[in-house]
Amino acid sequence: MQLSKLTDYALRTLVLAAVRDPELVTVAEIARVHRIPEGHVRKITNLLAREGFLASVRGRTGGYRLASPAERIVLGRVVRATESDLRLVECFDPSSELCRLEPGCVLRAVLVEALDAFLAVLDRTTLAEIVVERRRLAELLGP
Amino acid sequence: MQLSKLTDYALRTLVLAAVRDPELVTVAEIARVHRIPEGHVRKITNLLAREGFLASVRGRTGGYRLASPAERIVLGRVVRATESDLRLVECFDPSSELCRLEPGCVLRAVLVEALDAFLAVLDRTTLAEIVVERRRLAELLGP
Repeated sequence: MQLSKLTDYALRTLVLAAVRDPELVTVAEIARVHRIPEGHVRKITNLLAREGFLASVRGRTGGYRLASPAERIVLGRVVRATESDLRLVECFDPSSELCRLEPGCVLRAVLVEALDAFLAVLDRTTLAEIVVERRRLAELLGP
Repeated sequence: MQLSKLTDYALRTLVLAAVRDPELVTVAEIARVHRIPEGHVRKITNLLAREGFLASVRGRTGGYRLASPAERIVLGRVVRATESDLRLVECFDPSSELCRLEPGCVLRAVLVEALDAFLAVLDRTTLAEIVVERRRLAELLGP
């Protein structure tokens, strides 16, 4: 069980933006710090801007900053936006050929409960809590 | 975020064995009911037998049955045995090149907490609870 690379990098991008806030963070810096190709970074920043987590500033000295204070960016919302597939097993998919046991089986309900418990932790955690050691993070990043 | 096919099919195999219990279930029946190639089923039954969830009965009329009562087979233990990779994001992997932010970042700790919450639900659920409608499941399976 793993989160997608997209989710992983989206979370790290927000961490970087939160550390730099209110300064802008650029696609080039995100790519360099997290060793991700710039093309991927652009996909991620576009998605995060579209979903209202990042604000885009255009122009030669442009870049991205958090669209709202880190205290108001909830991790559960980010993961739901970036994780396209939260169907843990085949029978989550209504379009899949029905498992023969499905009408009497409680497995899906239990896995839904487990997934809800997973997301509940992220729903009560904000980006601000992730970067609580902001000064240390800024030092790790360097200028 | 998805569980591996191996976990999905291992859980379904145990459901089938629980419904048939104390009768044996064969590789051929598991393959037929869940539409999995027999080669995959053998890998799954071998793993489940090795991990102590299934008991193997050899011979022409052989097959598998639960190694212990369904009430004592805990889903969390099954998922830990079948899910080889529970590192949700890259920085879970101690051998990965360290993320530059890792020493000051709380993200991993929060994701570990979320994963623990996920597994806690499975740790308090037994196979018996999944097949609580055992009679209905047996009807769905047919003879």
